[in-house]
Amino acid sequence: MRIAVLGTGVVGRTLATKLVQVGHDVVMGSRDAANEAAAEWATSVGNGGRAGTFAEAARHGELIVNATAGEASLAALALAGAEHLEGKVLMDVANPLDFSKGMPPSLTVSNTDSLAEQIQRAYPAARVVKALNTVNASVMVDPGGLSAPTNLFVAGDEAAAKAEVVAVLGSLGWAPERVLDVGDVTAARGLEAWLLLWVRMMQALGTPTFNVAIVTG
Amino acid sequence: MRIAVLGTGVVGRTLATKLVQVGHDVVMGSRDAANEAAAEWATSVGNGGRAGTFAEAARHGELIVNATAGEASLAALALAGAEHLEGKVLMDVANPLDFSKGMPPSLTVSNTDSLAEQIQRAYPAARVVKALNTVNASVMVDPGGLSAPTNLFVAGDEAAAKAEVVAVLGSLGWAPERVLDVGDVTAARGLEAWLLLWVRMMQALGTPTFNVAIVTG
Repeated sequence: MRIAVLGTGVVGRTLATKLVQVGHDVVMGSRDAANEAAAEWATSVGNGGRAGTFAEAARHGELIVNATAGEASLAALALAGAEHLEGKVLMDVANPLDFSKGMPPSLTVSNTDSLAEQIQRAYPAARVVKALNTVNASVMVDPGGLSAPTNLFVAGDEAAAKAEVVAVLGSLGWAPERVLDVGDVTAARGLEAWLLLWVRMMQALGTPTFNVAIVTG
Repeated sequence: MRIAVLGTGVVGRTLATKLVQVGHDVVMGSRDAANEAAAEWATSVGNGGRAGTFAEAARHGELIVNATAGEASLAALALAGAEHLEGKVLMDVANPLDFSKGMPPSLTVSNTDSLAEQIQRAYPAARVVKALNTVNASVMVDPGGLSAPTNLFVAGDEAAAKAEVVAVLGSLGWAPERVLDVGDVTAARGLEAWLLLWVRMMQALGTPTFNVAIVTG
């Protein structure tokens, strides 16, 4: 599948590398086509991965991954171009973290709104699905590296778009039955607010390499 | 131990019943000493449980459980009386849920503040510990009823107060090693914001009888 990964940080590079490894055709997008991190990444993965602008990446992708920093996401998507997002699944992995007062971060949007909803409102023809934002990059691409099976979540307005994301998550190693559909895009409020607890858990556990497993009766 | 349970709803009654069953001396507090739910509860548990006003309950308790509705908690604690909270552990189980726009609820306080912090600021001589708010009442008192061990969290400024709460949680069936200390009282922001996801999970799973288990590498 042709996939755009917007963002050249740890999350973007980790996801893009794994997506290439499992056979996807990935363009990593950044603000500047000469972005060093993206160029280094493209060299490291050889065929199957290229670097480009946000617009070049989005034009390429049948599916778009927003792996930019939450506070930069709307600007990045504007550069990607509405015409390159139209009708496409936009997997939003970003978290609207506000580090302006240091650790632990707060959220720039929360409770009655979310970054995923802001994106969906700004690009109504995109098919936004919140996913993967609840775990560290290393866990995103290696769920089997944890000591027991854990869970992911998807939230979005369109069932078919969520099914596409579940398939992509499958290629990352997440069994479909471990992905819980928590509802429409407004459920992203809960998935993003989870970061407020996730950061405290990371501090208490002393590692970002963890996740949760849902246990029922 | 002498325990005050403030609140006569499902959470208050469920917790108070279990606390009596495991040998604690419980007074359930409510706004009106003639509260029917509290009177019925007191009759149902026989010796070991009595009903009273918020102030009578708080005077009785060596440990205070705030199991009132989040929006009513500060008013309930004002009726309980600062003099009856001073120096005592105040286990805050409440969630600041706002149902004014129906389901799913939003939070009345979140992100950069929390109900637990509001309580701690209002009653600086109380030793506030956020706990148990992350699970349904039935799970609070029967962790073994789930199909695998799960986790709870505590947050509060004082280690000794958290240790007292962990001991009380032990009497409810929670092994100490399943309770993660996530930090000072500001970590309650994460524990309360968890409700935004918890409600969506409840809807997706079709049951409130669930919890999460932390899985590391």
